[in-house]
Amino acid sequence: MNAPLPLQPTPEAAARPATVVCLSVPFDLKKIFGGLDDARLVLRDPEEIERPEDVTAALCWNPADDAFDRFPNIRLAASIAAGVDGILACPSLPAGAVVTRVRDDAQADLMAGYAAFAVLWHHRRMGDYVANQAARKWVRSFRPAAPAAVPVGVLGYGLMGRAVARAVAALGFPVIAAARSGGEAMPGVEIVSGPGAIETVAARAKILVNVLPLTAETRDVLNADLFAKMPEGAALVQIGRGEHMVEDDFLAALDAGRIGSATLDVFRQEPLPENHPFWTHPRIMMTPHKASDTSREETIRQLGLALDQLEAGLRPDAAVDREAGY
Amino acid sequence: MNAPLPLQPTPEAAARPATVVCLSVPFDLKKIFGGLDDARLVLRDPEEIERPEDVTAALCWNPADDAFDRFPNIRLAASIAAGVDGILACPSLPAGAVVTRVRDDAQADLMAGYAAFAVLWHHRRMGDYVANQAARKWVRSFRPAAPAAVPVGVLGYGLMGRAVARAVAALGFPVIAAARSGGEAMPGVEIVSGPGAIETVAARAKILVNVLPLTAETRDVLNADLFAKMPEGAALVQIGRGEHMVEDDFLAALDAGRIGSATLDVFRQEPLPENHPFWTHPRIMMTPHKASDTSREETIRQLGLALDQLEAGLRPDAAVDREAGY
Ligand SMILES: NC(=O)c1ccc[n+]([C@@H]2O[C@H](COP(=O)([O-])OP(=O)(O)OC[C@H]3O[C@@H](n4cnc5c(N)ncnc54)[C@H](OP(=O)(O)O)[C@@H]3O)[C@@H](O)[C@H]2O)c1
Ligand SMILES: NC(=O)c1ccc[n+]([C@@H]2O[C@H](COP(=O)([O-])OP(=O)(O)OC[C@H]3O[C@@H](n4cnc5c(N)ncnc54)[C@H](OP(=O)(O)O)[C@@H]3O)[C@@H](O)[C@H]2O)c1
Repeated sequence: MNAPLPLQPTPEAAARPATVVCLSVPFDLKKIFGGLDDARLVLRDPEEIERPEDVTAALCWNPADDAFDRFPNIRLAASIAAGVDGILACPSLPAGAVVTRVRDDAQADLMAGYAAFAVLWHHRRMGDYVANQAARKWVRSFRPAAPAAVPVGVLGYGLMGRAVARAVAALGFPVIAAARSGGEAMPGVEIVSGPGAIETVAARAKILVNVLPLTAETRDVLNADLFAKMPEGAALVQIGRGEHMVEDDFLAALDAGRIGSATLDVFRQEPLPENHPFWTHPRIMMTPHKASDTSREETIRQLGLALDQLEAGLRPDAAVDREAGY
Repeated sequence: MNAPLPLQPTPEAAARPATVVCLSVPFDLKKIFGGLDDARLVLRDPEEIERPEDVTAALCWNPADDAFDRFPNIRLAASIAAGVDGILACPSLPAGAVVTRVRDDAQADLMAGYAAFAVLWHHRRMGDYVANQAARKWVRSFRPAAPAAVPVGVLGYGLMGRAVARAVAALGFPVIAAARSGGEAMPGVEIVSGPGAIETVAARAKILVNVLPLTAETRDVLNADLFAKMPEGAALVQIGRGEHMVEDDFLAALDAGRIGSATLDVFRQEPLPENHPFWTHPRIMMTPHKASDTSREETIRQLGLALDQLEAGLRPDAAVDREAGY
């Protein structure tokens, strides 16, 4: 779905590579993406920049609250990933800056694979087999339901949600997906949209996958009220953002058996603190925010494209709706 | 793909339910399928049958070598599952008996899910995350390749192999499938057939899934010669039959790093003996022959249909080619 990107810089860009400032608290973006800058752009840490007023573009992941203060002329704040919540939440983000995300089909494939894995982990009770193997126990008693009898809910039907829905439907599970405004139908996928879509999907899903973006509307959406609507013993796959989930509500629902089991990739605090109860809960499988990666090359290619589009007076294809929050 | 089956017995069958003898060493088939016999057929253990010469049908799973000796007039030997190797290997099987298998799309979905799970387990090194969680370690260093760069081989392209190929392709992996005589193309799936097909596929696959039937040609096919042709460090998913694999060759290839990791569902001896090295190998994940189940109802429905078709002088849809062995 990615538009073919020009591999060569435009003549102007080649003549004058743009300086892109790296703004991130948790990651050393210059190191991660180092060597990928090309004739079109150079990545710089803030302290390397002598004339900050000349800088118009930033590469970002969870920038510090005051990160943009020194760079008042930023016109482009590019996320290194699919989510932009950390950028939009930044108080110093210039009001007029265009915020872009990465739209990477290979990342969507990885996301789809992770979600499919997690759905199957719960459907087939694979954790029990892992435990039985460790105990040298040959136990054949569990009979899984036919996939056709196990509705899987997908919250969010964007680049990630559609890939997840396609993959899960290909495994024979009926999929119900929640979006805000609708979306393109796919075989085996029913789309629910508008107000109440999230609740409607949660109430029907035996396995619920969250791939929503984090917005004012979706913060804390995985809470006790929603869990109370889910079928008893349903499984939860959480690959959106940590702030979607009210962790205490979730633990209570898990311990009450309302939620049967869960796969968690994102957490309110990352890295997850060593003493957090999730680590050792027998019905939680967790991964360290690795449901998917963007390719580093693709991130830089799309940054270059956004720069070119802005330069040409166009709105970048990858720009998000700052008002909607995604 | 299953033909819609008549839910009502034919008038003749309703008038005179057929006696079907249960022949299995490992399983108590009468108990497993008990209560599902209908007006068309009754299941009986051999010792319950007074006039064995009147019995023309058997329901089977790994029958004893002499199982058919008492039942010389068996015309139909129906497997409870997709495989018929245990029946065809039985020395007392009457030469003229028709052997049927179960063709169950819900089972194929389960098989596809298992294979997809196993492919992802290896591609994403999920076993490492399970171990890291147990050790409360937040380790993000592993970057999976894009699925598009990971060819998955599927040995066998029948009811199971096609479902596996479709599911794995939907996750973005290029699929190469081996068949004997060809088969219907599918998006993202390349079919290799004829002599040497298995070797060609194995040589290209970073993850190799075996769903072949067990025949004279395929016995011991997963051996040192084949492993030597596979890309270094490839993963193996073994969901065909235990006798496909030369276990010593496999362990040597695994320990040499030629095979990187494996998911095993079937074994030469089942249940796997408690002292078998597979249980504790750190790069093996195993399940107790549970890659898929047929639905019990479907097995009995298809048995009923085969009885009706034989009665009507037709060759049952589910009959296998005894010569080819599947
Ligand atoms: N764990 C990880 O490694 C990882 C990696 C990548 C992404 N993610 C998460 O996945 C999110 C989604 O990524 P994406 O690329 O699919 O985003 P996207 O293309 O912007 O799609 C967002 C989807 O969510 C729907 N949505 C937004 N607000 C909603 C609401 N209040 N109710 C119902 N539906 C709502 C949108 O509906 P419309 O279609 O109607 O607009 C759209 O379908 C990211 O923001 C991030 O949080 C996590
Ligand atoms: N672990 C489990 O729980 C489980 C469950 C179900 C099945 N199984 C295994 O899966 C097997 C396959 O089931 P199925 O329903 O897919 O069988 P199927 O419909 O009969 O298909 C068999 C496939 O294997 C191919 N084949 C046979 N001999 C071959 C050879 N020498 N070289 C290359 N290809 C060969 C056939 O090629 P053509 O298409 O050219 O004929 C066909 O594509 C079963 O026999 C059983 O061993 C295991």
